Amino acid sequence: MEEAGRIDHLSGERQKAQFDLQPMKVLLAGGEHELDVAQRVAAIVARDPVFSKANRTRLSREELYKNSLRKASHGWKLIQQLKLTEEEAFKLRSLVDEPTFTDLHWGMFVPAIKGQATDEQQKYWLPLAYKMAVIGCYAQTELGHGSNVQGLETTATFDPATDEFVMNSPNLTSTKWWPGGLGKASTHALVYARLITDNHDYGIHAFIVQIRSLDDHKPLPGVTVADIGVKFGNAGYNTMDNGLLRFDQVRIPRNNMLMKLAKVTKEGKYISSDVPKQLAYGAMVYVRQSIVSDASVYLSRAVTIAVRYSCVRRQFGGQGNDPETQVIDYKTQQHRLFPLLATTYAYRIVGQWLKWLYSDVMNRLESHDFSTLPEVHACTSGLKSLTTSVAADGIEECRKLCGGHGYLCSSGLPELYAAYVPACTYEGDNVVLLLQVARFLLKTLSQLGGGVKPVGTASYLGNLPVLTKQGSRVSQGTDWLDHSNLLYAFEARAARLALVATQLVQKAGNEAGFEQHSIELIEAARAHCELMVLSKFVERLQRGVPGRGVQRQLDILCEVYGLFLLVSRAGDFLSTGCLTPTQVALAKQQLQNLYTEVRPNAVALVDAFGHTDHYLGSILGRYDGDVYPNLYKDAWEEPLNKTVVTDGYEEYIRPILQQEFLTSRKARL
Amino acid sequence: MEEAGRIDHLSGERQKAQFDLQPMKVLLAGGEHELDVAQRVAAIVARDPVFSKANRTRLSREELYKNSLRKASHGWKLIQQLKLTEEEAFKLRSLVDEPTFTDLHWGMFVPAIKGQATDEQQKYWLPLAYKMAVIGCYAQTELGHGSNVQGLETTATFDPATDEFVMNSPNLTSTKWWPGGLGKASTHALVYARLITDNHDYGIHAFIVQIRSLDDHKPLPGVTVADIGVKFGNAGYNTMDNGLLRFDQVRIPRNNMLMKLAKVTKEGKYISSDVPKQLAYGAMVYVRQSIVSDASVYLSRAVTIAVRYSCVRRQFGGQGNDPETQVIDYKTQQHRLFPLLATTYAYRIVGQWLKWLYSDVMNRLESHDFSTLPEVHACTSGLKSLTTSVAADGIEECRKLCGGHGYLCSSGLPELYAAYVPACTYEGDNVVLLLQVARFLLKTLSQLGGGVKPVGTASYLGNLPVLTKQGSRVSQGTDWLDHSNLLYAFEARAARLALVATQLVQKAGNEAGFEQHSIELIEAARAHCELMVLSKFVERLQRGVPGRGVQRQLDILCEVYGLFLLVSRAGDFLSTGCLTPTQVALAKQQLQNLYTEVRPNAVALVDAFGHTDHYLGSILGRYDGDVYPNLYKDAWEEPLNKTVVTDGYEEYIRPILQQEFLTSRKARL
Repeated sequence: MEEAGRIDHLSGERQKAQFDLQPMKVLLAGGEHELDVAQRVAAIVARDPVFSKANRTRLSREELYKNSLRKASHGWKLIQQLKLTEEEAFKLRSLVDEPTFTDLHWGMFVPAIKGQATDEQQKYWLPLAYKMAVIGCYAQTELGHGSNVQGLETTATFDPATDEFVMNSPNLTSTKWWPGGLGKASTHALVYARLITDNHDYGIHAFIVQIRSLDDHKPLPGVTVADIGVKFGNAGYNTMDNGLLRFDQVRIPRNNMLMKLAKVTKEGKYISSDVPKQLAYGAMVYVRQSIVSDASVYLSRAVTIAVRYSCVRRQFGGQGNDPETQVIDYKTQQHRLFPLLATTYAYRIVGQWLKWLYSDVMNRLESHDFSTLPEVHACTSGLKSLTTSVAADGIEECRKLCGGHGYLCSSGLPELYAAYVPACTYEGDNVVLLLQVARFLLKTLSQLGGGVKPVGTASYLGNLPVLTKQGSRVSQGTDWLDHSNLLYAFEARAARLALVATQLVQKAGNEAGFEQHSIELIEAARAHCELMVLSKFVERLQRGVPGRGVQRQLDILCEVYGLFLLVSRAGDFLSTGCLTPTQVALAKQQLQNLYTEVRPNAVALVDAFGHTDHYLGSILGRYDGDVYPNLYKDAWEEPLNKTVVTDGYEEYIRPILQQEFLTSRKARL
Repeated sequence: MEEAGRIDHLSGERQKAQFDLQPMKVLLAGGEHELDVAQRVAAIVARDPVFSKANRTRLSREELYKNSLRKASHGWKLIQQLKLTEEEAFKLRSLVDEPTFTDLHWGMFVPAIKGQATDEQQKYWLPLAYKMAVIGCYAQTELGHGSNVQGLETTATFDPATDEFVMNSPNLTSTKWWPGGLGKASTHALVYARLITDNHDYGIHAFIVQIRSLDDHKPLPGVTVADIGVKFGNAGYNTMDNGLLRFDQVRIPRNNMLMKLAKVTKEGKYISSDVPKQLAYGAMVYVRQSIVSDASVYLSRAVTIAVRYSCVRRQFGGQGNDPETQVIDYKTQQHRLFPLLATTYAYRIVGQWLKWLYSDVMNRLESHDFSTLPEVHACTSGLKSLTTSVAADGIEECRKLCGGHGYLCSSGLPELYAAYVPACTYEGDNVVLLLQVARFLLKTLSQLGGGVKPVGTASYLGNLPVLTKQGSRVSQGTDWLDHSNLLYAFEARAARLALVATQLVQKAGNEAGFEQHSIELIEAARAHCELMVLSKFVERLQRGVPGRGVQRQLDILCEVYGLFLLVSRAGDFLSTGCLTPTQVALAKQQLQNLYTEVRPNAVALVDAFGHTDHYLGSILGRYDGDVYPNLYKDAWEEPLNKTVVTDGYEEYIRPILQQEFLTSRKARL
């Protein structure tokens, strides 16, 4: 973020912008209030030395973890002392920018209690959780079981003699494995286990299990708990104590089972409650909409770094004493970078829509209206899958766009990738999620005959007869700037791919057909998701956006998003006959013209994300563009540079140079 | 590698194989002799405790670096004591599997002297280098200059008064930056600098500069040298001391300029030698062919891990007491994994052909036949670019295919990616290289009119009139198993894309047109490179391969390689009119049929790469498939698990739990 009176190598770039920054910032933040909170909290975090990220890739795991505890503790103290609101506290935790145990406490443990505990249970647990008198984690995944929750093996067997559940890990693969905050920090775990009572296995239910003493933090008897070891990246997720957990006949009170949806009586009788199971669904929508929103944030950080550095970096093309060409001016660079910039904006807007969808779902759930749930499930599953995959790949692409220097940790990009990429796996593996979207599309199409009208993001499928027959009306390049033409092409592609996949599965006529044609199903699901993003972007623009030049920039970015995807997936559009080769060629040309329009606005468009230098944690992405002197300065902080002659010289290098190993070999050379 | 008398969870998989392992191993190794060397040396490395990789992601940078010096020194000692041949010594260094300073000494410093020094200079320097009485690195890249070698700013100014060159770093961006082995280990650097004599700048030349004392290893006066800091990944390339280097008027004898191609006389006169500059080209061909060969090796390691773990891992689909389905049986997994397996084989074969091409070029250079150089340049540039990009992405894809556990360093995959991905940037940025291929294609096409017949891998362009008009004759799925049909489609696509790009550039009529249409040029170049790989695979199979079932497996892999690419790039084939949508649909179907044929052979096909467990360094990829017990065991080696109650509990966790920060906030909850 701006600092007064300092050098700004990018000021020339900023002056080129053709729109007002402030209204764009407001739009991206989701409102004046949201922007104000973000800026105030960002300033608090950025100036606090405890939150410094300068050294994080140079610490050993133990130092790194301890330092992360320090940050979490300091953050909690600030939240108290500054009397931050929930919203501000949430913002603070995310801007500290280190995965840590409190993420799971606030993001999974507390919501799970809200969603699955009875009112009475909530009255007991929530106050404890809110003041962090207990620290909770979310222990679902096991060593042998990830995506298939129904396959979990941990057991909770009811013992009516003592009115307790006995938690047990019957074999190695049932070891809880991966839960964040479990390894070293948590006192309590929300454990998913097979409920066994009356000699019957009632399947997976949730239990709160205390795992560490509240006096001295030692594991309780029968509990084996530890960290699972080093993960991808220097810092990355290594600030998190992802843990393993085994139970050897650990007893918990019966009432530690979360009983909103089902309960076990004192006598060991299992009783489903009359609360509709669908009510538990709100939590999943909430988590997934926040993941989509994060996808945009993480990608925007990488794009900010790559855009700024591409303006600073020059290579080739200088004649005589002229400086070389800024790499951002190369078409090949633009073709990799600007679509990612556009994608960031597109995801921000679809994320804001998902936030609305969440509140809509919650309202409906309250009045027991479950009609939109299947479509909402497809939306959240599909968008989680699409946006996290694209954001992860996009971050790594931005790193590559920074050339050699992007490989240095001081670029901030390696850490960003390593910390982000698990989002493709947690909260639903991205391939599994796309298959769920495909199942929804199959069902929607198969119900069309019966007159069931598809709703929401699937409503275009009601137009199937037209979409599968009528081609695109694009006849010249500028037709592609008409958003309805773009939308039509995406709808036609999604509809046709869905239809082909449905027909294949129906022909097979059974569940095996679903697996057999899963490749085609995935393609159809992805097309549906890409359409969702585009259509929400177009819808948002139709509502109009205030601010000088802002709408124009967003129009361009929307077109870049759509046309780049169209060109990248030309195989889909052509093989389904949605477009002709000529129409694809026109799209390619138009896309390249748009890059020229993005170019002068590129730096301002990333400034609009409003990331502080602290949050970016990148020398290449500095607001002031003062890259080279700071790279040089930072190199000297490397621990290896503490000594002039390296440790190991005496034992390992000197003997080589002084021929101490060279005996009989000499003659052979 | 096999160990007698041990558990083997994958033996069932191995029994399914439909071919003999031994002849496949011979083919992949490049011959009986090569296989023998590889196996003998691999056994030496695997059993030596100094080369253990068990702890590498748990060490601090300083420990990691020192341990890497230890390995390098120990390796050198073994090479002496066991009297290893050059070939064996090379193999040993690569199987130790840690980037270290000796890589640059042997891989860049020595070859550069051979290529650019006069005979007399070689007689002085090579014996010193061979016995490592000097340790050399290769200092080309600067902080501000990577791809554009002509833009380097370091100067070497001749001073006739003392018969010396004065090496100088005139500004910050001229700081040498990135050279491996420079930061801490090397005594000498091969420095590229602008040669200035007689007040004239003669451009970039090579100089040998001693940078550290041979007595105490301290930097010499005027030399500033250090490590540039932490890079991507926990271990990765952090075992390498990539360095920075600045000269403040450092004097070296005139004769330290490498003078094979040009020299400076005592009087300061610059004289080009009559040795053709093309002779220096052999070194670049050598380096690039070895990079292509490495691409296959690195990708094969990731594929080995992913294939074996995909057989061990089960998820969903088990009924009752049946085990769940092996994830390798899912079509979606096969569609991501088997094409990478096929790609590994394809790259191995094109790598072997490149090795032949290198010896062919060297023979021609000796007799001053430079006729094939432009085509050879396009081959090596293009294949370096294609194979490193695909291998890097493929390694990361394999990591994702291993789900959550692939994110643990104990899977070996994070390190493999982090250590491999710089190959996309070093020795020529991959985008820049593709543009060089495009330039070759442009030139070839523009010379067709003049009757110049294209040769070697470009000879298909001589068939342009047919390729741009005649469609594919594929009319049923099995036609795609006829390799000539596959080849024709790839030739037609490459030819048509090259023609389109050429016409666009010619229309613009100038150098700006080249930049303006660089996106289309890149596409054409990539198509050309993909064709090269396919055609060399097909050619190799036409020569016949011995061993029961081996040819059949290779046929299948060749088809998977071709059809997967065809389906992934369907947009190219359709938009250029090479194929019809029906032909693409047939290809998709055929590809999926082939996966079924690969499936029973998958484990044997990765066994054939012959990687030891030491070299793989992966619990998920263990030969015996004994994954879960070893993951569990390894977790306990994590340093955080040395204490039961974590360091930091007293300062940071206890105060939270005991409400020490909770004062005024209490009332608000």
